[in-house]
Amino acid sequence: MTVSVTATLLLSCPDRPGLVATVADFVFRNGGNILHADQHIDTSEGVFFQRVEIDLDGFLPRGEIEEAFAPIAERCSMRTAVRFSDEVARIAILVSKQPHCLFDLLGRWQAGELQAEIPLVVSNHLDHADAVRLAGPVYQHLPITADTRAEQERGLLDHLRRHEIDLVVLARYMQVLGAPIIDAYRGQVINIHHSFLPAFTGGDPYRRAHERGVKLIGATAHYATEDLDEGPIIEQDVIRVTHRDTAADMARKGRDLERVVLARALRAHLEHRVLPYGNKTLVFE
Amino acid sequence: MTVSVTATLLLSCPDRPGLVATVADFVFRNGGNILHADQHIDTSEGVFFQRVEIDLDGFLPRGEIEEAFAPIAERCSMRTAVRFSDEVARIAILVSKQPHCLFDLLGRWQAGELQAEIPLVVSNHLDHADAVRLAGPVYQHLPITADTRAEQERGLLDHLRRHEIDLVVLARYMQVLGAPIIDAYRGQVINIHHSFLPAFTGGDPYRRAHERGVKLIGATAHYATEDLDEGPIIEQDVIRVTHRDTAADMARKGRDLERVVLARALRAHLEHRVLPYGNKTLVFE
Amino acid sequence: MTVSVTATLLLSCPDRPGLVATVADFVFRNGGNILHADQHIDTSEGVFFQRVEIDLDGFLPRGEIEEAFAPIAERCSMRTAVRFSDEVARIAILVSKQPHCLFDLLGRWQAGELQAEIPLVVSNHLDHADAVRLAGPVYQHLPITADTRAEQERGLLDHLRRHEIDLVVLARYMQVLGAPIIDAYRGQVINIHHSFLPAFTGGDPYRRAHERGVKLIGATAHYATEDLDEGPIIEQDVIRVTHRDTAADMARKGRDLERVVLARALRAHLEHRVLPYGNKTLVFE
Amino acid sequence: MTVSVTATLLLSCPDRPGLVATVADFVFRNGGNILHADQHIDTSEGVFFQRVEIDLDGFLPRGEIEEAFAPIAERCSMRTAVRFSDEVARIAILVSKQPHCLFDLLGRWQAGELQAEIPLVVSNHLDHADAVRLAGPVYQHLPITADTRAEQERGLLDHLRRHEIDLVVLARYMQVLGAPIIDAYRGQVINIHHSFLPAFTGGDPYRRAHERGVKLIGATAHYATEDLDEGPIIEQDVIRVTHRDTAADMARKGRDLERVVLARALRAHLEHRVLPYGNKTLVFE
Repeated sequence: MTVSVTATLLLSCPDRPGLVATVADFVFRNGGNILHADQHIDTSEGVFFQRVEIDLDGFLPRGEIEEAFAPIAERCSMRTAVRFSDEVARIAILVSKQPHCLFDLLGRWQAGELQAEIPLVVSNHLDHADAVRLAGPVYQHLPITADTRAEQERGLLDHLRRHEIDLVVLARYMQVLGAPIIDAYRGQVINIHHSFLPAFTGGDPYRRAHERGVKLIGATAHYATEDLDEGPIIEQDVIRVTHRDTAADMARKGRDLERVVLARALRAHLEHRVLPYGNKTLVFE
Repeated sequence: MTVSVTATLLLSCPDRPGLVATVADFVFRNGGNILHADQHIDTSEGVFFQRVEIDLDGFLPRGEIEEAFAPIAERCSMRTAVRFSDEVARIAILVSKQPHCLFDLLGRWQAGELQAEIPLVVSNHLDHADAVRLAGPVYQHLPITADTRAEQERGLLDHLRRHEIDLVVLARYMQVLGAPIIDAYRGQVINIHHSFLPAFTGGDPYRRAHERGVKLIGATAHYATEDLDEGPIIEQDVIRVTHRDTAADMARKGRDLERVVLARALRAHLEHRVLPYGNKTLVFE
Repeated sequence: MTVSVTATLLLSCPDRPGLVATVADFVFRNGGNILHADQHIDTSEGVFFQRVEIDLDGFLPRGEIEEAFAPIAERCSMRTAVRFSDEVARIAILVSKQPHCLFDLLGRWQAGELQAEIPLVVSNHLDHADAVRLAGPVYQHLPITADTRAEQERGLLDHLRRHEIDLVVLARYMQVLGAPIIDAYRGQVINIHHSFLPAFTGGDPYRRAHERGVKLIGATAHYATEDLDEGPIIEQDVIRVTHRDTAADMARKGRDLERVVLARALRAHLEHRVLPYGNKTLVFE
Repeated sequence: MTVSVTATLLLSCPDRPGLVATVADFVFRNGGNILHADQHIDTSEGVFFQRVEIDLDGFLPRGEIEEAFAPIAERCSMRTAVRFSDEVARIAILVSKQPHCLFDLLGRWQAGELQAEIPLVVSNHLDHADAVRLAGPVYQHLPITADTRAEQERGLLDHLRRHEIDLVVLARYMQVLGAPIIDAYRGQVINIHHSFLPAFTGGDPYRRAHERGVKLIGATAHYATEDLDEGPIIEQDVIRVTHRDTAADMARKGRDLERVVLARALRAHLEHRVLPYGNKTLVFE
């Protein structure tokens, strides 16, 4: 099966009649074929969202799509984005000591699961340098102390730019990212963290979840914002625990969860299926 | 919030360029607004499927939609169906001794979860007559023996017709339905049964699953066909068991599962989100 | 299969060597046979917990067990409880308008799933009187206003006592229980409520979870304490939601979850498998 | 916290009164303290199973436990096994082309999750030699053809013995193991494979599950026997799929599942929590 290249339009605008027909007509008049379209109307806010995937074969040259669509976008007050299925996002993985998400992502990348390159891994520790380099990426060690934080972040931003990074994945990177990087990569930083019912704020959450006798522990992948763990949620899942699970067992089960939740979120992002909206996301299937 | 009435087009045809635009244009030219559209292309078979939900307000009168669409359907070799959100399906629930699915459905109906009427419950036993009648439906007792099977089925079909039943739900009805009823209600009979990994054919499956030491038990809701448990799957789920669970515990957990799996399948059907296709289904969200 | 009557010892004490042997020896010397024993050591606190189920056939008369065990309990500073498998707990279900948990429990009771009687249902509304009475229990209507709260609670406590209630199940009872009832039924009031990742305090949580774009919603069953939703957790579970789920869909999925989570918690309690401890529980399998 | 070394007794015998007391008394008389005990009675077969974990500190020297216990074992017709928490199982991982389970296990091993050594990885392909060797184990390439099967298996058995392997993990090893290895490692070969509801025998199961429109796909970890996929089940789990998932998507989700199911099964085995019994297992928590 030859897989053709596709363009994906991501649209949002105030809802009104005829939007689906307007977009479909635009595609058809320009020789395109819609392979997949999904939309959603937030009825309480009156906002229309659409994701349209178009076979590029026969359609407009990729450089002309946005311009050709501009009159419609303007008329409907649309926010638009155009992405292509052969885009290869350049990912930097940031990691501290715990490597479970890092190696999971590298394994998926090597298995061809991710439409991405991973040219760069950055860590504030040296622990995983050899294994990462064998897998292919540059391993950049950027240690950090209270005194060197600002400087380290400038160095980090330099490395991200030099490697032309599109997307930053915080794979258990135990440092807060400062505003300059969040600004430079708005909507392009994905973080993974544990979640609990009820929530535990502050340090050592597994110990506190253990003390509270919770029966489930969870993980949440989200876009990082200035409020580190409060950005738009992309994916969540939970796993069952019992009184027999020590805090260490909970942490181990949490690691298993973090890997799959982060991987699912990353995959959805790379397939242009995530549409951030306010402080939440639509995730099309 | 006023909820307007919608028409839902369910379409399938050989795939070709422009189908989405053709349908959207048809809707737009006739004054309709697409509230929700979802489609799927089976790339291996080259088949296009679409579910389009249209605001009836401003659109064609409901009686003229199918005729107006006929030229497109013919040109594209489409199979089409048009359904309306204010249709109230008339459901008959068939049940034997175990009432867990019956009472679950009656409870959902009373809670307003189902866009349906339930005028009729048929059972080959008398056990649940009073509770059913208090809830509202007629309780028709149609006992069955090896000698009276054909006659009972004729009686059953009579009752279904007299109550103008659209949809038959086998809520743990432990009798095989004969060809006349399956024929009369093709694609309109939903059954629920247990499922196992690996599968156990024949009698007393919970005992055998217990003997085999399975760690999961499942339930499957599907359209009934002549091969009772082999029809198109609508919904499935599983629950965890351990060596501590006796066969009776497994059966109890299985009952919990059967209720939610049947209810989810029924809801998807009533919302016109299920598109049967060969021996499988598409279930749009 | 004849099922014999069993006694269940529930023990907790400071951990020290020989506890398992001491208990097993006590049972054996008194003609008992241990059918099931499970224990747990909280290594951080140094506390030993045990649940021992003993065939009463051949063992001490049930009235003499606690006295015979007293010297061991004293020597080891044990807290003990003795329960019997043929005890039939008398349950009162308290409910407001939403009946999904109420009818679920009544259905399980009628199906013989619960080792309990349900002589009494109390509601501050009249809605479900007929269906409850047909099922068997007395339906006591105790309306409540801001002015009559104290009086209503005294009436409620009277009814609980008159019906010799052992266990109170808050099946979506949307009123806070006052201290007199919590005190009179300490560790014998089970509540069910929704839970979210992250948590939403205050009103209308499904709307707020919807606004936050959560991908999971949960339910928690717990013992009620003065801090209504902060008591020891017995059971939790979650279900997946998407941006397509309205707040109403989330509430509906939440109802499905609440039913099974409450039923599992109740079952664990009735089988004497829950050992509350501080603000958490051990739930033996 | 100093973690002391423990001995684990795994017992099974015909059920009769006093077994728990007999074992507890044996431990106590010999200076041991029971840290954890779990038992199960198969009431239909009348068989008693127990897992008892004893602090070695103060107990019999480890070499004398089995002999000291022998009179009890004989009197009760017990099958017994004694294992120690500081035993480090020597694992060989067998793999073909797909490395997802292999790298998952190596990652867990490096993270200290497994009480084991992994001195040897054997493959009929060369693909993963470098990454495995960097992680530590010997990578033994043993290609196989129809003509060389018997010879390859002899070579494999040689390597297993030379590396003093205790446990063989088939981490997507796409070859049937012959009787000599199954015999030499009875109950010490763990396999992982996909499972479906309903089951699909024969080749290309993901394609066939896709054609059948299943809504769940599963994975099963089990002990390998001569009937490769029919041995005692240790662990199972499932993941949800939709009509949008291609056969390739199902295979990808299946890989995620296989990793965690295999890892959970391996962990249970290494903690001596699995008690095979007939063609099933008890898995103590």
